Amino acid sequence: MNALQKFIYGLDKQFHIAVGLDSDINKIPEHLKKEKDPVYEFNKIIIENTKDLACSYKVNLAFYESDGIEGLKSLEKTLELIPEDVLTIGDAKRGDIGNTSKMYARSIFDHFKFDSITLHPYMGSDSVSPFVEYNDKLNFILALTSNKGSADFEKLALEDGTFLYQKVIKTVHDWNEHKNCGIVFGATNPEELKTNMEIIGNLPVLLPGVGAQGGSLEDVVETFKTAGSRNFIINVSRGLIYADSSENFGAVTRAELEKYNKKIGEILGK
Amino acid sequence: MNALQKFIYGLDKQFHIAVGLDSDINKIPEHLKKEKDPVYEFNKIIIENTKDLACSYKVNLAFYESDGIEGLKSLEKTLELIPEDVLTIGDAKRGDIGNTSKMYARSIFDHFKFDSITLHPYMGSDSVSPFVEYNDKLNFILALTSNKGSADFEKLALEDGTFLYQKVIKTVHDWNEHKNCGIVFGATNPEELKTNMEIIGNLPVLLPGVGAQGGSLEDVVETFKTAGSRNFIINVSRGLIYADSSENFGAVTRAELEKYNKKIGEILGK
Repeated sequence: MNALQKFIYGLDKQFHIAVGLDSDINKIPEHLKKEKDPVYEFNKIIIENTKDLACSYKVNLAFYESDGIEGLKSLEKTLELIPEDVLTIGDAKRGDIGNTSKMYARSIFDHFKFDSITLHPYMGSDSVSPFVEYNDKLNFILALTSNKGSADFEKLALEDGTFLYQKVIKTVHDWNEHKNCGIVFGATNPEELKTNMEIIGNLPVLLPGVGAQGGSLEDVVETFKTAGSRNFIINVSRGLIYADSSENFGAVTRAELEKYNKKIGEILGK
Repeated sequence: MNALQKFIYGLDKQFHIAVGLDSDINKIPEHLKKEKDPVYEFNKIIIENTKDLACSYKVNLAFYESDGIEGLKSLEKTLELIPEDVLTIGDAKRGDIGNTSKMYARSIFDHFKFDSITLHPYMGSDSVSPFVEYNDKLNFILALTSNKGSADFEKLALEDGTFLYQKVIKTVHDWNEHKNCGIVFGATNPEELKTNMEIIGNLPVLLPGVGAQGGSLEDVVETFKTAGSRNFIINVSRGLIYADSSENFGAVTRAELEKYNKKIGEILGK
């Protein structure tokens, strides 16, 4: 299955939640800290408890890189636990000149074998094209992010009165020849999402910002339903993986994910 | 010595060239490929031959990440070879929401102990601030890059008629409270650099694009001289490290770097 097929496989089951593996040694349950590789043991329990309910696993590279080589070992082992038919997102936010992006693509797609990646648009087409050339992968390009700083540049008005992030979305359509491009769009402001559904069209959308960052799940799902698109993945990291810190945390995370899925199913209907 | 002190230490010797360690296993001299860690052995010879003449070593993370854990091991060992008083630049082009940028900062500054990093501005202030909080480090924020794709977004005109990259430069001044921010500015078009020297002011500038990418060293140095700033680092990667592929490549790279330094010295005068 290529990345798009895995995505659709999840959508067919009405799965829209990406479990965000922002696994931080300082935040995982205390009882795991005596393990040889606590982050890996933590991820293992999370994945075992969610793998039949998750649309995707979004792995935040920073949380593994921060621990250097040991962190990357945990990452490699973690990726082996994810079922073949579940989409993996390497949340790496890369983007560089062509020959360097090629190396990053090699790292994320060939070495770690992620199905998809998140990318910075700032450096333009030739910084993105080495990733887009992998036509069995998916590329989520940052459009509007969920943080406060999105006001600094992403929301700047251009000469024609539109915002920079809207120009990025339009450009992603141009880059989408292989049907392997999507965008990242913060879910913190429901009105913003509604206003942009027409520009977004059928692009796959990865939405951070629900949960710890304050966005509303219901608003997001209803907006996509109204627009007639099902191409969305809502990422929940802290709200799922740190839902509980007892020895029972895996079951609590599972129950939380079930709640999300149920809520989504109720809105979307059959 | 903190990052700024190392930078100034180089400037005092009129050293302005960063040796770009974009070390690619496929491009290093054939005779090294039989070594256990060819990239490390290559870097070792490059560093031994340039360490008393380089303003900085810019290490392109992608070239090490592409080889996974083995690549990071080469990177760690390489960093140990760089003299304490020479500025290291982790060319990582990171940038993410606050809690994630914090993890990247931990990776680049605490784990690998780089003196400085390159950053994407797209996500705004809170994506940059976890790096800026390290006030003994230097942060080079992408303004205008040297690739063709810089036309896609960086050179978009804003409502007030200025370009996005110029807004980025102005904003970097606002972020520079700890005097630890600089910019990346492509050296491919000398006129663009001249036009922007006033906005750039005294910010440290990392300039890629000289050499393989076509920019002129003389133009860059003269522009800074005219503007009365010495705060520039010209990165040369392929033009230096792949100057020769014989067993004698280290000496050839050294001779090339000497030529660059001599040319710069001639323009700057005493």
